Amino acid sequence: MAHLPMGPGREFDAIRALAARWGDAARGLGDDAALLDVPRGQRLVVSTDSSVEDVHFRRAWLRPEEIGWRATMAALSDLAAMGATPLGVLLALNVPADWRDALPALAAGVGEAVRQADTVIVGGDTTGGPVLSLTVTVLGTAAQPLTRAGARVGDAVYVTGVLGGPARALAAWTAGMVPDAVARARFARPEARLGAGRWFAQQGATAAIDLSDGLAADAAHLAQASGVRLQLDLDALPCVAGVDARQAAVSGEEYELLCTASPALDPATAAALLGQPVTRIGRVLEGPPGVAWRDAQGARVEFTGGYDHFSL
Amino acid sequence: MAHLPMGPGREFDAIRALAARWGDAARGLGDDAALLDVPRGQRLVVSTDSSVEDVHFRRAWLRPEEIGWRATMAALSDLAAMGATPLGVLLALNVPADWRDALPALAAGVGEAVRQADTVIVGGDTTGGPVLSLTVTVLGTAAQPLTRAGARVGDAVYVTGVLGGPARALAAWTAGMVPDAVARARFARPEARLGAGRWFAQQGATAAIDLSDGLAADAAHLAQASGVRLQLDLDALPCVAGVDARQAAVSGEEYELLCTASPALDPATAAALLGQPVTRIGRVLEGPPGVAWRDAQGARVEFTGGYDHFSL
Repeated sequence: MAHLPMGPGREFDAIRALAARWGDAARGLGDDAALLDVPRGQRLVVSTDSSVEDVHFRRAWLRPEEIGWRATMAALSDLAAMGATPLGVLLALNVPADWRDALPALAAGVGEAVRQADTVIVGGDTTGGPVLSLTVTVLGTAAQPLTRAGARVGDAVYVTGVLGGPARALAAWTAGMVPDAVARARFARPEARLGAGRWFAQQGATAAIDLSDGLAADAAHLAQASGVRLQLDLDALPCVAGVDARQAAVSGEEYELLCTASPALDPATAAALLGQPVTRIGRVLEGPPGVAWRDAQGARVEFTGGYDHFSL
Repeated sequence: MAHLPMGPGREFDAIRALAARWGDAARGLGDDAALLDVPRGQRLVVSTDSSVEDVHFRRAWLRPEEIGWRATMAALSDLAAMGATPLGVLLALNVPADWRDALPALAAGVGEAVRQADTVIVGGDTTGGPVLSLTVTVLGTAAQPLTRAGARVGDAVYVTGVLGGPARALAAWTAGMVPDAVARARFARPEARLGAGRWFAQQGATAAIDLSDGLAADAAHLAQASGVRLQLDLDALPCVAGVDARQAAVSGEEYELLCTASPALDPATAAALLGQPVTRIGRVLEGPPGVAWRDAQGARVEFTGGYDHFSL
């Protein structure tokens, strides 16, 4: 914890309140920096991710616990995409005065996500600010990390989970309606696919990316980084109820994984092991780097742009 | 880089612009997470620190380069306090629309600070937001890190640098005046005392903390963590021109180091080696944990509270 300028007397109270809320989900707070050890033979994997009020969420949509959970899982999702195991989390909070009363609940959501990921909070910083902003930095380890860059011609393309929930929830909220429970939960309580990332890495997967910009855009990132062409079947996309495949393909902040791996991997076996759907949605071809989408009739489908959060 | 929701088409442009500005000060951007290696026998040292517009600085006071530099050095200062060597930096930026044009200059300041600290930018995230907020996460390594908790009775207390500049600059700005160049530079261009932190660690220093809340408050943190009493001499404090010792003792965001170490260490030798003042300002006594200040006549001096940034 660096400093916490919340007015005289409040600084240490706030840190104590957060640490009390976290219990054994936090470790070694209170020095200038945290000390961690990376096991021999493991590489360090690090990423940082901001969740900002009125950019990534609106206060009216989510409970404070959900905001804390979601910001933490969104950051941990980058470790999942690398096939890494979490080592620790740092939390930088910009907290406006009218959010102070919600801080314990927010912290509880962070703590819950950290426990779910079997890791700990090792440091943080809390300051003021005009809107709530959570920047979560995640540290992990991996013996053989996955990157976006290794996809090989002949691989199959797999995706975890069921897509489109966040887009459906956002569409409802921005239309002034209440989203259905399934779509809402996919937005409010995403799960970083840490187990799936490690499993794919162990199976010799060649590349992976997590779905934050939407499948269409993230598949293009992976294709560019790997210098390959992905042929993806719109018809194969696993979609939540009420969402069609075109919507699912541009739904952002899914925090599912897109992986390239041997076509010999059986999705049903993977799904049974991982406790979540795993779907084969295409294959890796030679050709100019990019993504070729096709529909059930084999006709070409175009997507332009990625997910840019909701617009205010 | 996770995602950068600055509107269609702007996302990748912004990342490219930043990476171009950083040149070899950035490394391996563009995957879900960065990969780093911690040398054998070294511990990993990590800290995160937010700098928020209108909380830690005002736009009218600083150039964008200075804002980037200062946020980066403030975070690196936590590594200095641990006696660590930087391994890499992650930068999460919340950028309002009216700051976008200043982003290259801001990034240049971050890059310059990172080069000065002989490290690299390994990851980041850029999002929108209502004010500029920079969250800098620093990673370092140390074989034998310093903490706040090791001060021993009989140690001497040392401080690096010359204190009071940031307080003097803030006093001028908040009074609507222009600070003098020395005070302004101490606020706008702080230097993380990485060399000093490592040197003290090598000399067997027992504890250290960086001065972010102000010497009086930070000395109290160190005393509490170590369970010792620090006797500090107000008269011994090294002060910038125009600042008295009482003001220097409560000047925040100095990013100098307070260390406890053998009284046999010679401050003049240390200063010559490190290229900056090192001053012995007191000693470590038995007694209830805390700080006992005394003036030139040996009379007790009381400080209450710490530095809480400027109030708006």
